[in-house]
Amino acid sequence: MKKGCPYGTHRVIEPKGALPQPAKKIDNTMELYDNEILIDVQTLNIDSASFTQIKSQADGDVEKIKEIMLNIIAERGKHQNPVTGSGGMLIGTIEKIGPALEGKIDLKVGDKIATLVSLSLTPLRIDEILAVRKNIDQVDIKGKAILFESGIYAVLPDDIPENLALSALDVAGAPAQTAKLVKPGDTVLIIGGAGKSGMLCCYEAKRRAGVTGKVICAGRSQKSLDNARRANVADIYVSIDATKPVEVMEKIKELTNGEMADVTINNVNIPDTEMTSVLATKNDGVIYFFSMATSFTKAALGAEGVGSDVAMIVGNGYTRGHAEITLQIMRESKELREIYEELYA
Amino acid sequence: MKKGCPYGTHRVIEPKGALPQPAKKIDNTMELYDNEILIDVQTLNIDSASFTQIKSQADGDVEKIKEIMLNIIAERGKHQNPVTGSGGMLIGTIEKIGPALEGKIDLKVGDKIATLVSLSLTPLRIDEILAVRKNIDQVDIKGKAILFESGIYAVLPDDIPENLALSALDVAGAPAQTAKLVKPGDTVLIIGGAGKSGMLCCYEAKRRAGVTGKVICAGRSQKSLDNARRANVADIYVSIDATKPVEVMEKIKELTNGEMADVTINNVNIPDTEMTSVLATKNDGVIYFFSMATSFTKAALGAEGVGSDVAMIVGNGYTRGHAEITLQIMRESKELREIYEELYA
Ligand SMILES: NC(=O)c1ccc[n+]([C@@H]2O[C@H](COP(=O)([O-])OP(=O)(O)OC[C@H]3O[C@@H](n4cnc5c(N)ncnc54)[C@H](OP(=O)(O)O)[C@@H]3O)[C@@H](O)[C@H]2O)c1
Ligand SMILES: NC(=O)c1ccc[n+]([C@@H]2O[C@H](COP(=O)([O-])OP(=O)(O)OC[C@H]3O[C@@H](n4cnc5c(N)ncnc54)[C@H](OP(=O)(O)O)[C@@H]3O)[C@@H](O)[C@H]2O)c1
Repeated sequence: MKKGCPYGTHRVIEPKGALPQPAKKIDNTMELYDNEILIDVQTLNIDSASFTQIKSQADGDVEKIKEIMLNIIAERGKHQNPVTGSGGMLIGTIEKIGPALEGKIDLKVGDKIATLVSLSLTPLRIDEILAVRKNIDQVDIKGKAILFESGIYAVLPDDIPENLALSALDVAGAPAQTAKLVKPGDTVLIIGGAGKSGMLCCYEAKRRAGVTGKVICAGRSQKSLDNARRANVADIYVSIDATKPVEVMEKIKELTNGEMADVTINNVNIPDTEMTSVLATKNDGVIYFFSMATSFTKAALGAEGVGSDVAMIVGNGYTRGHAEITLQIMRESKELREIYEELYA
Repeated sequence: MKKGCPYGTHRVIEPKGALPQPAKKIDNTMELYDNEILIDVQTLNIDSASFTQIKSQADGDVEKIKEIMLNIIAERGKHQNPVTGSGGMLIGTIEKIGPALEGKIDLKVGDKIATLVSLSLTPLRIDEILAVRKNIDQVDIKGKAILFESGIYAVLPDDIPENLALSALDVAGAPAQTAKLVKPGDTVLIIGGAGKSGMLCCYEAKRRAGVTGKVICAGRSQKSLDNARRANVADIYVSIDATKPVEVMEKIKELTNGEMADVTINNVNIPDTEMTSVLATKNDGVIYFFSMATSFTKAALGAEGVGSDVAMIVGNGYTRGHAEITLQIMRESKELREIYEELYA
């Protein structure tokens, strides 16, 4: 049996020496290396920025969506959207565990897990696409995937429906990072705050900012904002178009008596919202870009361009305990759980 | 006279409502709005990531470089590289000041300034390209530019040669941000540490990390590393290929007794170095991406992919006092000043 690198570089076809995430093409044959885990895949949760792009390219047509997805796999050996660069995650059942891992991990054949590493680096073979759930970015398939030795995962809990866990775990980094950033008394703006990751961030921000703080949930459609309101996750709900920086700045100025946000968290699934985040935030505030549609240069040069000293953080999808923190919110908040079950379960 | 928006949205042709930096095309006619400053341009300092890309597209041919530059201006009304998204900055002489700014700013007609906002948002007209200094990313032109009301600038000091000031001010954000991040005792890795911004970062990091800390200057060519060594800006000098994450990780492991870096600063001018930064940094360390060739998704999903909890910061080109801090280094360090005069003056 062949020996693999913990990071999966042994699967990289092009360019050599790269890691699987930035690689253009990886090997998705399902012959196991000694330190890999083989997963029988049940459902993919496509990253929202990626799925939004694919849906629009396919004009919403399900057969076209399938075709685009299969082409991505054929080209790259992994489900990495070439436009957004992002992936998503999956749930499935452990089929085989490489001998080098035995005794080292708490998994056994037959366990049902969610991978917590991006599909943009996961070797994936799709044999058939069984169902596309367009509104919640989920796709049921027949197929196999590989988890590398350094790859993280969560065993699915018994007390939360599988598809709900999948949806929540896909964005687990967001509320966990919010918990680290928000301090008591902060004014927190969540752009895309009525979406899947947005509501979790609002909830966590409200807990951290406390009664002396203020959480502004900025969404787009009334439908989404009504959901957020029903879940009672914020102090203020406001409808904005996040691609209109100056308009949004004026609105946030009004809502904060000219003070602007201490912390802004960006959870949208569309491009060109960097400057909105910058202009809505205090000069010495913090912006957390969770959105995978964020452009590095637009953020860096845009902030400089308006002389803003704001600190901008790249949304690392992982932070210690992120899966636990996120599932705990689903157990803690009856209102949020109800809405997530309606929307995603 | 037409009234302008402080951020320059009045010059945006496409898409409407956007700010000038992310905009695809801006108006570069030189008829002044009431809150604009007209600059008679002398020299452009093209951002290193951008100029590296242009040079390679032109196969190093000066006439082709000129052609590419003029095409960019014709298409966008600003010098924003379509591949890297980045710009650079300029020096020139104040030719006219809009009446709405009079009395509000400390500039007068005839002052020589460096703009501290990116060329990627600056309306620019090039009438003629006079000289291309290929090795230091500088281009002398005949032409005009506009500075918006919110745009920042520095009056050129008397005691530092102009081209040297231009080179140093182009990267002023980097050492100033380093000063904010590095704490006494830190192990600091500077990737691309022997380049223009890299040496300034090393210098500032060494001052902050102090005798209990360790600054590793990781460059590529021996020539650059020799310069850095001569300037005495680091504790360790090492030659690496920043596009080889696993190799570099092994080297840094060796140099830090397996501890890895507390703070990594990325100052290269080429793509695909995100994972090198992640793997070389402690799990709970900080990475500062100053490189304009950084990909947001490669950083975010790459760190997640290897389960690293590292905090990743987008290199905001501006921070309070950055021009002063950077020029001060040029006054303080005789060794560094000498080398920068050799290389850039
Ligand atoms: N960093 C990571 O590791 C990681 C992991 C997973 C996901 N993500 C990213 O996180 C982002 C959010 O994911 P998600 O699953 O929470 O997506 P989601 O549920 O689809 O939420 C996106 C939200 O953005 C809102 N929105 C879209 N366009 C807008 C506009 N012009 N103005 C204001 N709001 C707008 C939508 O509002 P409506 O509901 O009204 O349409 C929606 O609520 C995505 O970009 C995704 O790629 C990152
Ligand atoms: N955030 C901002 O506002 C802002 C402003 C200005 C510039 N920047 C960015 O900062 C970066 C550095 O700018 P600069 O002016 O300092 O550039 P520079 O002087 O050209 O330095 C780049 C350095 O990267 C090194 N390098 C290139 N390829 C490498 C590799 N494969 N492995 C290791 N090192 C490698 C080069 O080494 P050699 O010398 O041996 O070739 C060089 O010393 C650029 O990406 C630029 O776009 C950002």
